[in-house]
Amino acid sequence: MSELLFTPEQITAIERTRAEVSQLHQLLVRYDLVVWTGGNISGRVPGTELFVIKPSGVDYPELTPESMVVCTLDGRKVAGFSGSQRNPSSDTASHAYVYRHMPDVHGVVHTHSDFATSWAARGEAIPCVLTAQADEFGGEIPVGPLALIGDEQIGRGIVDTLQGHRSRAVLMANHGVFTIGKHAREAVKAAVMVEDVARTAHYARVGGEAHRAAR
Amino acid sequence: MSELLFTPEQITAIERTRAEVSQLHQLLVRYDLVVWTGGNISGRVPGTELFVIKPSGVDYPELTPESMVVCTLDGRKVAGFSGSQRNPSSDTASHAYVYRHMPDVHGVVHTHSDFATSWAARGEAIPCVLTAQADEFGGEIPVGPLALIGDEQIGRGIVDTLQGHRSRAVLMANHGVFTIGKHAREAVKAAVMVEDVARTAHYARVGGEAHRAAR
Amino acid sequence: MSELLFTPEQITAIERTRAEVSQLHQLLVRYDLVVWTGGNISGRVPGTELFVIKPSGVDYPELTPESMVVCTLDGRKVAGFSGSQRNPSSDTASHAYVYRHMPDVHGVVHTHSDFATSWAARGEAIPCVLTAQADEFGGEIPVGPLALIGDEQIGRGIVDTLQGHRSRAVLMANHGVFTIGKHAREAVKAAVMVEDVARTAHYARVGGEAHRAAR
Amino acid sequence: MSELLFTPEQITAIERTRAEVSQLHQLLVRYDLVVWTGGNISGRVPGTELFVIKPSGVDYPELTPESMVVCTLDGRKVAGFSGSQRNPSSDTASHAYVYRHMPDVHGVVHTHSDFATSWAARGEAIPCVLTAQADEFGGEIPVGPLALIGDEQIGRGIVDTLQGHRSRAVLMANHGVFTIGKHAREAVKAAVMVEDVARTAHYARVGGEAHRAAR
Repeated sequence: MSELLFTPEQITAIERTRAEVSQLHQLLVRYDLVVWTGGNISGRVPGTELFVIKPSGVDYPELTPESMVVCTLDGRKVAGFSGSQRNPSSDTASHAYVYRHMPDVHGVVHTHSDFATSWAARGEAIPCVLTAQADEFGGEIPVGPLALIGDEQIGRGIVDTLQGHRSRAVLMANHGVFTIGKHAREAVKAAVMVEDVARTAHYARVGGEAHRAAR
Repeated sequence: MSELLFTPEQITAIERTRAEVSQLHQLLVRYDLVVWTGGNISGRVPGTELFVIKPSGVDYPELTPESMVVCTLDGRKVAGFSGSQRNPSSDTASHAYVYRHMPDVHGVVHTHSDFATSWAARGEAIPCVLTAQADEFGGEIPVGPLALIGDEQIGRGIVDTLQGHRSRAVLMANHGVFTIGKHAREAVKAAVMVEDVARTAHYARVGGEAHRAAR
Repeated sequence: MSELLFTPEQITAIERTRAEVSQLHQLLVRYDLVVWTGGNISGRVPGTELFVIKPSGVDYPELTPESMVVCTLDGRKVAGFSGSQRNPSSDTASHAYVYRHMPDVHGVVHTHSDFATSWAARGEAIPCVLTAQADEFGGEIPVGPLALIGDEQIGRGIVDTLQGHRSRAVLMANHGVFTIGKHAREAVKAAVMVEDVARTAHYARVGGEAHRAAR
Repeated sequence: MSELLFTPEQITAIERTRAEVSQLHQLLVRYDLVVWTGGNISGRVPGTELFVIKPSGVDYPELTPESMVVCTLDGRKVAGFSGSQRNPSSDTASHAYVYRHMPDVHGVVHTHSDFATSWAARGEAIPCVLTAQADEFGGEIPVGPLALIGDEQIGRGIVDTLQGHRSRAVLMANHGVFTIGKHAREAVKAAVMVEDVARTAHYARVGGEAHRAAR
């Protein structure tokens, strides 16, 4: 845990990002993408080498701007902010890895949303059968490697898969979904949309097995 | 963007239609037919050559009567109304095409609702296996062509498919659902019902593959 | 529409039943068993030859005790009650048929709930694979005949199927579900439970096709 | 029904447990794990030979701390507490059996949640295809025996299956789910998570039948 010094402008940017990222978590609940304390969102703080992320083990209705944990880009928690007794999400090292290696990414979202995760459980990319998927992701949603939770392995898998890919979402094998965005809200939109296309593509395939040849 | 002149009666009709169409959008949320800013409803303004439609990129809880965009029947936005800084939905040209070619249609709805869109992804009409579908749509729900978003191609596909057809809903291939109605509320009802019958028909088929012969 | 005379006790019983039946409709919404204005509940009025039923074409949030329509056991609406400008549900003749032929039935519920209706669409009884179904329905949920809407044909199908059967629910072929009960609340419980067992039995079969032999 | 004497500290512990267990029931509703009055939660009272459990036949919105029934570890209701006119859940003997035979268990939850119960209906363990399942349950979710409701048979099946097993959840054949925890909240978390992994594993299998070989 490091203690750092900031300009008033940086403090304002940190607090604004904490408020924004805190509120975005409610969209994960509204769109039914998370259960219990699972899932997390982070956002890079403009004009700093920091990002803010959901604390570990806190229930969604209890999340507040003050409970968002401020971290350096190597994934260490920054002391001195209100609510800083909380530990950051166990996925923090992976979020940090993404921010270090993808400078245009300013938001990262992680969920185990049901349908997208069912494709991830098979290690199967979501084929592009919908114009909405083409618009949002540029084509199929790719699969990333099976990686251990807790260190930056997952982050490396995300970067290796999405670097140079048109998709802003990756299905981490046997695990769940990570999405990135130019800002945190865009990453949340990608998390919402990947579940939506995963669900429709699932129904399309399951409902039509017997009729595929006919098309 | 054109500036036009209206009688007081026309202004009243425009504002009434904006209020009605704005409120109907909440039914798309209530029945879980849309995510994020996807989907849209439009309504023809009685006694005018105009219709009103959802603005582009606005989240459902933020929609208000003032945010509904007023358009001419060739799909151009009419200036001078409060909230007119918003652009109309990217599907506006297609809604306009429908209003020009189907004079009895006074409401159009578009969604990517999950089950109906899964039939659309296969390019497969929904067979009529339910009395509710027979009552509401007169038989099967037809499939329309794959068409590009942004110009009136989709509108032409809707008109070509539904002209003379008993169904008020069409599954646009690999895209989603469009419904029409004698007024906007009737088109919304069709959007709700087509998802309901698509879901039941999906379960009926998937659950019974092994048992079909037995019937 | 007939005008009749009642004792004060009968008037009290009528108003109590209207309030109860009106409120029970909200459970159909809470358990996601109905869309738009579909579905209906009726309840026999104790100490009279009457029952009350949902009006036709009214949206669920708008239902009030006063909007419940009072009917004779031959399915005619009784004039003179507040809100009596509404027509009773189009299924009224069938509810009336049930009340005339099954004197112990005091409540009838009709829905097109998704999973139960998907079994009905195949004309296939729900096999008893759950202890909850055995407890609630005594075994499988039977299928009734395909019948036209609007006259008492459906009622006859319900009575013919459930008379002497342990189940309080019947799947009307290609149509939907009807349930009966010793009071309206019991019929609502059966409507909730039949959808629950239909859903679980559906998933059990679909998920296990490849593994059935192993059991 | 027995009348017993307690220290003030014990009374405080009882009331605290009743409040906690009462409130936890709302999570079963929030996560859509129960319908009607089905399902139940119990919690062991620290410093006593007692546990508290949901009353039989009470609707979820009506549950209060006072309605929670206080029981001895042989499953008999303790008289004298407010609300004690209610009978305890019909699963009480089985909860008691678990508390007697598993001293580290302080919470037990029972549901018929849809997807987990569909695996139970097939008598098939949920294979471990997700890192979240490995984290939460240590591997596959086992199946317990088919047992009669009402006496302690179910409790014996739970203990026989989970004793020495890493999973805190068991699928009771053709019945539903039981989960245990070091406290009631942990058992509720297991009930939420088992449905989540059951759902994802279901979709993963159903969606991929045709593609399994390719992996």
